[in-house]
Amino acid sequence: MSKPIEVRNPRTGKYDYVIIPPPEKLLSQLCNRLRRFQGPWQQLGLEGRIEALQQWKQAILSLRDKLTEALVSDTGRLSISVLEIDSFLSSIDRWCKLAPELLGELEKETAIPFIQLQQTATPYPLVGVISPWNFPLLLSTIDTIPALLAGCAVVVKPSEIAPRFTAPLLTALSTVPKLRDVLTFIEGAGETGAELIEHVDLVCLTGSVATGRKVAQAAARRFIPAFLELGGKDAAIVLGSADLDLATSALLWASVVNTGQSCLSIERIYVADSIFEKFVEQLVAKAQRLNLAYPTVESGEIGPIIAEKQAAIISTHLLDAVEKGAEVHCGGEVEDHGGGWWCRPTVLTSVNHSMKVMTEETFGPIMPVMSFSKVEEAVNLANDSIYGLSAAVFASPEAQALEVARQIDAGAISINDAGLTAMMHEGEKNSFKFSGMGGSRMGPAALTRFMRRKAFLVKTQSVKDPWWFNN
Amino acid sequence: MSKPIEVRNPRTGKYDYVIIPPPEKLLSQLCNRLRRFQGPWQQLGLEGRIEALQQWKQAILSLRDKLTEALVSDTGRLSISVLEIDSFLSSIDRWCKLAPELLGELEKETAIPFIQLQQTATPYPLVGVISPWNFPLLLSTIDTIPALLAGCAVVVKPSEIAPRFTAPLLTALSTVPKLRDVLTFIEGAGETGAELIEHVDLVCLTGSVATGRKVAQAAARRFIPAFLELGGKDAAIVLGSADLDLATSALLWASVVNTGQSCLSIERIYVADSIFEKFVEQLVAKAQRLNLAYPTVESGEIGPIIAEKQAAIISTHLLDAVEKGAEVHCGGEVEDHGGGWWCRPTVLTSVNHSMKVMTEETFGPIMPVMSFSKVEEAVNLANDSIYGLSAAVFASPEAQALEVARQIDAGAISINDAGLTAMMHEGEKNSFKFSGMGGSRMGPAALTRFMRRKAFLVKTQSVKDPWWFNN
Repeated sequence: MSKPIEVRNPRTGKYDYVIIPPPEKLLSQLCNRLRRFQGPWQQLGLEGRIEALQQWKQAILSLRDKLTEALVSDTGRLSISVLEIDSFLSSIDRWCKLAPELLGELEKETAIPFIQLQQTATPYPLVGVISPWNFPLLLSTIDTIPALLAGCAVVVKPSEIAPRFTAPLLTALSTVPKLRDVLTFIEGAGETGAELIEHVDLVCLTGSVATGRKVAQAAARRFIPAFLELGGKDAAIVLGSADLDLATSALLWASVVNTGQSCLSIERIYVADSIFEKFVEQLVAKAQRLNLAYPTVESGEIGPIIAEKQAAIISTHLLDAVEKGAEVHCGGEVEDHGGGWWCRPTVLTSVNHSMKVMTEETFGPIMPVMSFSKVEEAVNLANDSIYGLSAAVFASPEAQALEVARQIDAGAISINDAGLTAMMHEGEKNSFKFSGMGGSRMGPAALTRFMRRKAFLVKTQSVKDPWWFNN
Repeated sequence: MSKPIEVRNPRTGKYDYVIIPPPEKLLSQLCNRLRRFQGPWQQLGLEGRIEALQQWKQAILSLRDKLTEALVSDTGRLSISVLEIDSFLSSIDRWCKLAPELLGELEKETAIPFIQLQQTATPYPLVGVISPWNFPLLLSTIDTIPALLAGCAVVVKPSEIAPRFTAPLLTALSTVPKLRDVLTFIEGAGETGAELIEHVDLVCLTGSVATGRKVAQAAARRFIPAFLELGGKDAAIVLGSADLDLATSALLWASVVNTGQSCLSIERIYVADSIFEKFVEQLVAKAQRLNLAYPTVESGEIGPIIAEKQAAIISTHLLDAVEKGAEVHCGGEVEDHGGGWWCRPTVLTSVNHSMKVMTEETFGPIMPVMSFSKVEEAVNLANDSIYGLSAAVFASPEAQALEVARQIDAGAISINDAGLTAMMHEGEKNSFKFSGMGGSRMGPAALTRFMRRKAFLVKTQSVKDPWWFNN
């Protein structure tokens, strides 16, 4: 159980880092310790918790170079690592600003007939966060920050594929006594995640459908809430009225950003046949302007494929598509450079739903483009999926796009842009189908889902004898 | 699978009613049909849905005698059946009044940087409700009414132990074309419930922890939300400062109402040692004033034990307690009269947590009373349970009771009264530990939990090229 795990570097292919999962007994002790300190953390009050989080933020800022370096080693890409750090730090500020009002709203008194109702809320004591390798920092903290502000203690188990970034976070954490008692990051793979679920009161997972099902069932056995953010096969629909230049730029970005390693990246594009040829031509031209970030992180826009197993999946999807008749306009294969796995932005046409690339999550910079003649057909194709995370619709006027968007079974739909979920935190959204389960991680629910509602019912009228004594 | 099930009458012990579970194929067809009509139901709009529910209510009113008769056959008790019907009918009105504002609040537009956010919500298409035998009408409709108003179709599987009441409901339903296409009640036992989960998009269960765990795991496999309202072992704490007359009346009522067959009935009472003797004396005196509702439903206040298996559990708990040294002050055994099982209000002292009657759900008119010397001890005893549904605290002044209540791990706590949850619908409450899972069935969440949040993100600024095109 506590066998060391070697970690691969996505640029060199070398196993140059080692993590050591905690033995089961240690994990159990650790969780007990966090749970013990959760009471004082809750009693510290929101102001005290905000102060501790801000101290952590300051300590991270002074280690920013180390954190960047670790994230670049974890993921092989630079500019998105920088964005991740910025986004994480600003999420601390955002939540610290939002929390007072959100928590305040959970406390209220109402007079109802015969009863004074005091509504309050209390945090789940210990939250477990299991996070993936594609945005290691962002996705290990997206649930953690609001949970901490709610008053929970949190233990985070990041992916064993990209765990280096936790070292500088823990160093920064060690300087904040109050916070280090209620927050920690542990090392380990799936087994450690499975053990963690047995010790916590609520579990958040960002990961695959297969892991999601295991986590959901383990949580169900223990009657603890599971908030799952799983895969997607996000569709884009481009109507004949769309602004072509805008659509191709936005869809290229949303399909290949982070080398497509994003749950909300566009994975399939349906284009009205009237503009199909022009669309493909423009998309290919723009795709070809992008370069691999090799040999250095600054050589281009497209970083390496982080997880070796994902390189195999992308390759399988491409081979399957070509075998079934897909036409490759650019990119088209997984390449080996310097020990890492790479894939150039790939545009495919002559695709259909018999191909894995149209139905399974590829998680690569692949843009399969399919034409449609009627909008109804496009909506049916978009909904012909086991996933329902997000989507995009391009049309002019906007109202036409919104009408189509309303028919798509997904939690967030960008209009005349794609992947906007990544830039917004305000709107609540739920996943459809196999893309997830549980409260929204955006909007007010992102914080309030970490608290149980508790009602105190104070009888206000002089208590009468119950009905049978009136006989 | 479609073998008929004979249903026992709780007063006569005779099997005088038969239900026929739908064969699997029929159930699947039925669910498909409901699902098909859910779209039109949603498009009907809230006003149309309210109108249909009100028509159903009127139709039920004209069959009220038949419904009462069926419920009395199901449960063997009269006055609570009357209360159940009143409460059900008024819940229709209450939800019809609340729904417009609650649904309205889910739709809103917000301008955030670069994006116009249109927040909306869409119902889970098909909701399954699995309900128990203790309040057959109320608990089969408590989730159903808000789900229908949210725009869902609903299929209800009531307990095979008390299924007679559905016939008059279905007769009334047949007169409301729009509603009968999206709501039905099916017959069957656990197997039918298990099959139902495979066909719905969300499941609500009111039932036991054992069933709850099965339902939660089946739901987790399918990634559908499960809202579980399970057992309880509600504790009451009576401090030395409490009004004794008030406390004994309220706790007697909350312990033995519906013969203790209520998830939120008080199942154990902790009393400060300074008033312990007086408390027991008063409680016993009041308990002895209550009579069995035998031979007629109007002979007394205490109806029969509805489920034969529950009679065995109550009997086991009593035997176990006495064997371990409990003292019986009144009642104390399960009695057989006219073929039915009965139990008089039973007060026990010299009890402790080694006894089933203090730790497992008894679901009978049993009041085990235990003394404590320090408040801290009482809180620890109250929290020493696998359950955390609700509780009660008696003290004067109120503030003292509230201070104790805050330390109890339960979703709703009555102050200077008990079982107030049954009389309030406004406060949100979540279950602790094994008492349940999922959104609150009270307060606004009772309705909004039947809808997924969907966000439309409209880019408002003229779209710039993504970051890499600016290089």
